[in-house]
Amino acid sequence: LGGWQARNAAATLPHCVDQLAAYGNLDNLRRVTGDADAPYAGMWFADTDVYKTLEAAAWELGRSGGSAEFLTDVAALLEKAQDPDGYLNSYYQVDHRDRQWTDLGFSHEMYAAGHLIQAAVAAARAAPQVLASQQVVAVARRFADLLVRRFGPEGTEAVDGHPEVETALVELYRLTGHRPYLDQARRLVDLRGYGRLGPGRFGPRYWQDDTPIRDQTEVTGHAVRQQYLLAGAVDVAVETGDNDLLAAVERLWRSALTTRTYLTGGQGSRHKDEGFGDAYELPPDRAYAETCAAIGSFHTAWRLLLATGKAHYADELERVLYNGIAASTAVDGRAFFYTNPLQLRTGHDGSHEDTPSQRLSWYSCACCPPNLARLMASLHAYAATGDAGGLQLHLYAAGRIAGHGRVVEVRTDYPWNERIAIVLTEAADGPWTLALRVPGWCRDARVTLNGWPVRVAAEEGYLRLSRTWQAGDQVELVLAMPPRMVAAHPRVDAVRGSVALARGPVVYCVEHADLPAALAGALFEDLELDATEPLRLVTSDGLAPVTIGVPLRARAAPPDGLYSSCHQPGQGRPGAQPARPGSTPTATVAAIPYFLWANRAAEPMRIWIPLATPAG
Amino acid sequence: LGGWQARNAAATLPHCVDQLAAYGNLDNLRRVTGDADAPYAGMWFADTDVYKTLEAAAWELGRSGGSAEFLTDVAALLEKAQDPDGYLNSYYQVDHRDRQWTDLGFSHEMYAAGHLIQAAVAAARAAPQVLASQQVVAVARRFADLLVRRFGPEGTEAVDGHPEVETALVELYRLTGHRPYLDQARRLVDLRGYGRLGPGRFGPRYWQDDTPIRDQTEVTGHAVRQQYLLAGAVDVAVETGDNDLLAAVERLWRSALTTRTYLTGGQGSRHKDEGFGDAYELPPDRAYAETCAAIGSFHTAWRLLLATGKAHYADELERVLYNGIAASTAVDGRAFFYTNPLQLRTGHDGSHEDTPSQRLSWYSCACCPPNLARLMASLHAYAATGDAGGLQLHLYAAGRIAGHGRVVEVRTDYPWNERIAIVLTEAADGPWTLALRVPGWCRDARVTLNGWPVRVAAEEGYLRLSRTWQAGDQVELVLAMPPRMVAAHPRVDAVRGSVALARGPVVYCVEHADLPAALAGALFEDLELDATEPLRLVTSDGLAPVTIGVPLRARAAPPDGLYSSCHQPGQGRPGAQPARPGSTPTATVAAIPYFLWANRAAEPMRIWIPLATPAG
Repeated sequence: LGGWQARNAAATLPHCVDQLAAYGNLDNLRRVTGDADAPYAGMWFADTDVYKTLEAAAWELGRSGGSAEFLTDVAALLEKAQDPDGYLNSYYQVDHRDRQWTDLGFSHEMYAAGHLIQAAVAAARAAPQVLASQQVVAVARRFADLLVRRFGPEGTEAVDGHPEVETALVELYRLTGHRPYLDQARRLVDLRGYGRLGPGRFGPRYWQDDTPIRDQTEVTGHAVRQQYLLAGAVDVAVETGDNDLLAAVERLWRSALTTRTYLTGGQGSRHKDEGFGDAYELPPDRAYAETCAAIGSFHTAWRLLLATGKAHYADELERVLYNGIAASTAVDGRAFFYTNPLQLRTGHDGSHEDTPSQRLSWYSCACCPPNLARLMASLHAYAATGDAGGLQLHLYAAGRIAGHGRVVEVRTDYPWNERIAIVLTEAADGPWTLALRVPGWCRDARVTLNGWPVRVAAEEGYLRLSRTWQAGDQVELVLAMPPRMVAAHPRVDAVRGSVALARGPVVYCVEHADLPAALAGALFEDLELDATEPLRLVTSDGLAPVTIGVPLRARAAPPDGLYSSCHQPGQGRPGAQPARPGSTPTATVAAIPYFLWANRAAEPMRIWIPLATPAG
Repeated sequence: LGGWQARNAAATLPHCVDQLAAYGNLDNLRRVTGDADAPYAGMWFADTDVYKTLEAAAWELGRSGGSAEFLTDVAALLEKAQDPDGYLNSYYQVDHRDRQWTDLGFSHEMYAAGHLIQAAVAAARAAPQVLASQQVVAVARRFADLLVRRFGPEGTEAVDGHPEVETALVELYRLTGHRPYLDQARRLVDLRGYGRLGPGRFGPRYWQDDTPIRDQTEVTGHAVRQQYLLAGAVDVAVETGDNDLLAAVERLWRSALTTRTYLTGGQGSRHKDEGFGDAYELPPDRAYAETCAAIGSFHTAWRLLLATGKAHYADELERVLYNGIAASTAVDGRAFFYTNPLQLRTGHDGSHEDTPSQRLSWYSCACCPPNLARLMASLHAYAATGDAGGLQLHLYAAGRIAGHGRVVEVRTDYPWNERIAIVLTEAADGPWTLALRVPGWCRDARVTLNGWPVRVAAEEGYLRLSRTWQAGDQVELVLAMPPRMVAAHPRVDAVRGSVALARGPVVYCVEHADLPAALAGALFEDLELDATEPLRLVTSDGLAPVTIGVPLRARAAPPDGLYSSCHQPGQGRPGAQPARPGSTPTATVAAIPYFLWANRAAEPMRIWIPLATPAG
């Protein structure tokens, strides 16, 4: 994870800053201040890309120091562009003043305010020493105050078509202690679900306005909107002690995880409305699995973990991070997937940014890259928690964890290596508990203390070591991670008869570039997995440190058309394709981590591999 | 088929006429003439719904007589609305005059002209005795002449974003003998594929403008656009003797049929762009399979059949008619599917017209219902062909077929009954050949002549009976149609491990309403087919004359989440779900023809049924 953070600082964040200049996002704001006169550029919510990049820059400033130039420049620009009443939105401040607040369904005005507020909170927390941080907080508070005046108890009953401001307002409340922000967030959560937004283009479920969240039984509509709403609702629930609301979010989360989540943790099965789709509708080829939805899921999982302490939320945090999120960024940190399919076919038409065959450096709707930048810049904050009782490690990565007078150093190559060494460097006084998460995928977790095996069973997902710690104490956790095959629930029609490969938290895939000569002549879509042969781990100096050797063969393609009849039931199992003359012999193919796909030529890929069917 | 035509005349066509009034399509044209002042209503190409309904009314007038009122009224309206130079398009004649011909990609101006021309051709052919027919032909010719002036050899090199006018111009040439119409059609086919339309919203492949049709190797982009282009190209090829062009269309057709066609004959796998998608991308749940694409495929198949005489084009004509097209219309003829999915899941969100759970009476883009009306009103024209050598029967339905002095009467309940009786009522002089198509699905076709078995093998899909016929000769064709299971090509990932059911040309489906008590408590998605039991035919007085009794059981759902690990390859086949305690016993379920689905409550349905997997 540290490597990803370093790459983010060195490549992704500067790339985003460059793109904001190149695509006119900053000039949009300069039009408001009279410092630019180019036409408005990009989507009507292009300001949010500025805010997310600003947030990333603030976290990065706190993480690694470095230049505060971007923060300082943008803070000044925002302060200058803001209207006296607090309004700030470059799309609606020059050409469309008469349309301010007139189209809450799609205008994204509160959504944009939310990202502004989150940037301000990040600046205040991570870079309080920089004067510009206070400047951004002041801008954000003026906008938040406007929202409270206009849409608070004395104002209009309204919600924004795209949730986001809810969680931002709670964060601003946490920063400032100003209760009206929390009340406004709660109000927005409670006012949603009564059809105030109208049907829009996709119906009221699209923006979760058909049913109040407390009554909602399944996740629905636009996946990013749903996740952002859930995250905000947890924040409201926690700060107001609203256990019913928290229970509602947990219920919806469960519905997402048990019916509408890809193996990668990605969510959103439809391109048409970027939406969840029906239960068990999880096509790997047409997976939308928007990067921002994965980030939203990460944010919700984190909040639910903090609110409940349940390890399965941390499991999801890890899964979506190493797969659904990580896959979005190229190894060079400068190209990104917006959608994250689990399969790419031979001859795929990648000519449109809706379904590119490779990562693109930017998008006409560029929500995802700066969203990645802000997550990566703050990633260290999600590894562990601390309280009076001890330290809890949730994500494993090399680094130093400090809190409540306790400091531990973690040394590991996880997830490539199953060993995690934890050295106490400051122990604090008295007994406390070091809690180590045992991921749900792990069936064999072992721990030693100063070289001696410790017999302790995981409780609710955590190995808990309680003692009076000494500086120098060494804990080693070994999370056995043999390669494994994964099967999907039989209701997931789209991957029936197929298996996926995984090791530890990492989902693997087969990419065309790795086919050996024996299979290179076969159509990628004719490959099938020979489950009679074992999987093997192979370490590598190449793209992936560890690959899984997968036994594949190419079936002989039936000569006829798309469909063939089987007139006589009982004469063999219809559809069975036993190995026949023409099938290739089984060869071993190196499967790579899914998150590393598409870093070579644009070539076919798949996570779910058809099983060779037994002879009929 | 005669029943469908009667329903069309009694229900669908009057329904369309009513909807045109209710939705403002006629008032749009009256705005142009100054006879209405309501705002423009509906899509910018709403005139085409008028034209298609007009075409349907004309065919119906020729088929069954009846009132010429709609034809007469609309002809007068069109004549009055047409500009002096021939231009006619109510969207661009009042509010948007300055934008005429400025956005050929999406304006649909030539597309609309095409439907106007087709209505005129239908009127001239089917109702030449009605004065209004000549009026419509004159209007259409004036518009066609404008197209030739503006976009012909002396004019601009341009094509329309939506093909349609190509086939219409060839038909107008056939009607009038005016060569410039044919030349213009050819010009439009030849100018396409060089990027003149620009990328648009979905890239140049969307409107088949990335590669000239002669070089195109696979169908691509918007399915309706592709099929309409293919139909027009066949027309051009046939009339100009262009065998290269014909070969290109046959090649593209083959690509569609072997990689991008549903079992129902439906085409279009994506909702986002109503497009074909990649090869083998054929999800049953998210099948777009637009009704208009199926109609387009029908039109192309017919033209290819005429151009080549190859029976497999007639096979496709029959398949798409009985499945992809027939499914779109409710039994009452007044509600329609725009998209035709092959699966509907429990809990499906049918709240939006993009994916309704039942047929709707109209759509905001209402292209499909009047398209159905015009096809159904002219359906009798597709049953048979005749030439100097004899008669060729392609589609079997009760009725009278006359041509070249020969008349046969066909008596049959096909496709419910496998017997087709053909009685010669006028034989003509000398020997000639009666050719009877043997569908590709049929493995046992028998024929008798005046009660005596005739030993003749089908040649290239047709049984040919050559003799000097006598009035009163009786031929009986028996096309054995046992129920059968159908498997998909293993590259079709979305239905792996599943089979479909069919009988004769009709694809069947299981609908929730037909589950017996033993299965009523199971989740529909847990049903699987027990392939060890036979299929049985059951005749019925209900919705479907013939149902297929299918042995189904409900698997016990795995208790855990969406994905489960299988750590040890070799320990049983991963993903195998053998019958376990908790599975229900096998029960027989009456599968109904797919085209009759969704005529009861909005309930789950599926064509592809998972096979019970053998114990691992």
